[in-house]
Amino acid sequence: MGKAGLPVSPLAPAGFPDLPVIAGVEFASAAAGVKYQGRTDVTLIRIAPGSTVAGAFTRSSTRAACVLDNQAKLAQGGDAPDGAAVIVNSGNANAFTGARGQESVDAVTAAVAAATGVPAGRVFSSSTGVIGEPLPHDRIVAVVDDLVRGLDEGGVADAARAIMTTDTFPKGASATVATEGGEIRISGIAKGSGMIAPDMATMLVYVFTDARIAASLLQHALSSGLETSFNAITVDSDTSTSDALICAATGRSAAAEITSLDSVDGIAFVKALHGVMRELAQLVVRDGEGATKFVEVRVTGAESDADARKVAMAIANSPLVKTAIAGEDANWGRIVAAVGKSGAEADRDRLTIRFGDMILAQNGWRAPDYDEAAASAYMKNQDLVISVDLGLGQGARTVWTCDLTHGYIDINADYRS
Amino acid sequence: MGKAGLPVSPLAPAGFPDLPVIAGVEFASAAAGVKYQGRTDVTLIRIAPGSTVAGAFTRSSTRAACVLDNQAKLAQGGDAPDGAAVIVNSGNANAFTGARGQESVDAVTAAVAAATGVPAGRVFSSSTGVIGEPLPHDRIVAVVDDLVRGLDEGGVADAARAIMTTDTFPKGASATVATEGGEIRISGIAKGSGMIAPDMATMLVYVFTDARIAASLLQHALSSGLETSFNAITVDSDTSTSDALICAATGRSAAAEITSLDSVDGIAFVKALHGVMRELAQLVVRDGEGATKFVEVRVTGAESDADARKVAMAIANSPLVKTAIAGEDANWGRIVAAVGKSGAEADRDRLTIRFGDMILAQNGWRAPDYDEAAASAYMKNQDLVISVDLGLGQGARTVWTCDLTHGYIDINADYRS
Repeated sequence: MGKAGLPVSPLAPAGFPDLPVIAGVEFASAAAGVKYQGRTDVTLIRIAPGSTVAGAFTRSSTRAACVLDNQAKLAQGGDAPDGAAVIVNSGNANAFTGARGQESVDAVTAAVAAATGVPAGRVFSSSTGVIGEPLPHDRIVAVVDDLVRGLDEGGVADAARAIMTTDTFPKGASATVATEGGEIRISGIAKGSGMIAPDMATMLVYVFTDARIAASLLQHALSSGLETSFNAITVDSDTSTSDALICAATGRSAAAEITSLDSVDGIAFVKALHGVMRELAQLVVRDGEGATKFVEVRVTGAESDADARKVAMAIANSPLVKTAIAGEDANWGRIVAAVGKSGAEADRDRLTIRFGDMILAQNGWRAPDYDEAAASAYMKNQDLVISVDLGLGQGARTVWTCDLTHGYIDINADYRS
Repeated sequence: MGKAGLPVSPLAPAGFPDLPVIAGVEFASAAAGVKYQGRTDVTLIRIAPGSTVAGAFTRSSTRAACVLDNQAKLAQGGDAPDGAAVIVNSGNANAFTGARGQESVDAVTAAVAAATGVPAGRVFSSSTGVIGEPLPHDRIVAVVDDLVRGLDEGGVADAARAIMTTDTFPKGASATVATEGGEIRISGIAKGSGMIAPDMATMLVYVFTDARIAASLLQHALSSGLETSFNAITVDSDTSTSDALICAATGRSAAAEITSLDSVDGIAFVKALHGVMRELAQLVVRDGEGATKFVEVRVTGAESDADARKVAMAIANSPLVKTAIAGEDANWGRIVAAVGKSGAEADRDRLTIRFGDMILAQNGWRAPDYDEAAASAYMKNQDLVISVDLGLGQGARTVWTCDLTHGYIDINADYRS
């Protein structure tokens, strides 16, 4: 069972991965009783002096207080000569809480600064859970000393659990990059399963690496991966007030400093970082509320990448497409309708639609050898690939989504998230 | 039970209204077995010589063959000196059917022209149902002679039933306008309950009047009402390939000709016409697939009407807002999130959110006298009004939607529409 009492997603991986330790990053988790009882709900992450930090945050105009605070702090630059910290709670989003929201952020980050010696301007925070209720920050402040005592480089799996809300499994991903000077390690954790249609960053995601890299390069490496990871997923088209991605590099690897993203090591690092980001993003979809199918939507042949994204998201967000997938119904007509409503340039008579390798429709018409039985059989797979070629240009984009089931209604008609 | 075997929507009106006869408009319905068995599925409407015709159609880039045909015919103007006709079938949308789609339209409209004497260029057609399957037009052609024999000015209620697909009740609305010269009558019918997020026009809607009015004025009166009727509703954010609204004026009223929409009679006629359009649009929402709640979303104080519409539609299309409503959960935090993702200008600290007359949130924060019990009690109503004031300007827009329930999943995971 997941933390909210929900059964574990059928799309969950076999277990939490064995993430490599990132030298200079320690984790501790505690049960503060912010909302949930009988489970950990606060995590502290301490990042060693000399690290660099980068971030990406939701573009929502109703951003949570902690998001605004993080953005203001990162606007001062990503260097952390005296170290940095991140404090995260689940159970309350501290969003739409007016001036009191900032007071709560100040109280929590000041307590962490006092207990760790990290400057308050380098203490980042995240809150996730119900919107519009005051954050009982005293409960978090009360466990800060315990958290500091419990800090441990091996605490990442517990941290991945403490940040869960309607998540049914903890999410982690890692990569290693072999360089001439030595190995660079990247480890990340994420939470998220509903209110997932990130815009700019997403959900709560923390990625750590022992690479030695300047803050500006780290930020660039992070930002350039957003469009093909967190901005390429959707569970329900609803964008959160609290989406936040924070990435820290401790420089403790034996590898040489990455001084350019175009160098051999730089290219390898960016590729590995983007791979971890994409894997975490896909894990969020695999824990989509009520999901029983993992769906890759590939759009090619668009006039531009932006048009390809419009079409891919129109398909991935269509309730009619998503319910057809839930019902294992090869109802490709709903994909045609989604293309039509997307607002992208499209020519009905040039569309090609595939399920897996099977061509269902082309030239504005059902394929001549269309086989309903084969298409229906394909829909029984747990992982599906829907491809649409618009036949107009070179624009392409792939996004990931899940189906829309009774489980989504169960969770959201009853759960005050 | 509705025609697809679904229980009648709890939001349905007590019965089909007693629509006034429009002199010069006759209806006939028949069972052609296009897809459904044991029910009528084809309707013929004959409009008298000397009438004028106007229309509005989906902007989908994957429009159905009949929509493209209607648009081409209306591009020639809306006069019908030798009369006009509309033939409608349910059970098959004749959409994404390539060149064969146009052949089917030609076959059906030619048969109607031959049997009625109406020029083929004035025979309009609509098809609604599954996308991507060839239309068995021979079955429709086979019943045309019967339809012509059955034409009757009193056949409107039967027509409203014949055009239903997943609709659970037939939809009609009317108005009368008293003028010095005599009364003008307006009667309309509509179908639609899923794939409802019209763009330009919507679903299948037929509105008739005995007003005497030039085609260009009729078109203008119709077009100016779209934004506040069919373009202001959404069931599931999915836009159909087949949305079509056709309006005909027979000129048989004793009232004087309407020669300006700014005259006393012109203003009264436009107001009545828009009222009928809005009522039909709202009836479609009341038959939204799986709906148990009818929701009016009023947005005011936006920087522009366009921004107000963005916010209203973001709320009305949010799966999280719609499932909270289904669960009778006063979860206004999800409304905050929907405002934030809308893309419209918004300032968290100027938002005011009301359920009915109750203020839930203002100044970026829960209202001081927020009463969770009262808010929850309000959610038990069948008709709900959610108001959001952005506190920025004069832009305003009201839209209508329904909740998202298990019924929607049931209908769409299993029904090949």
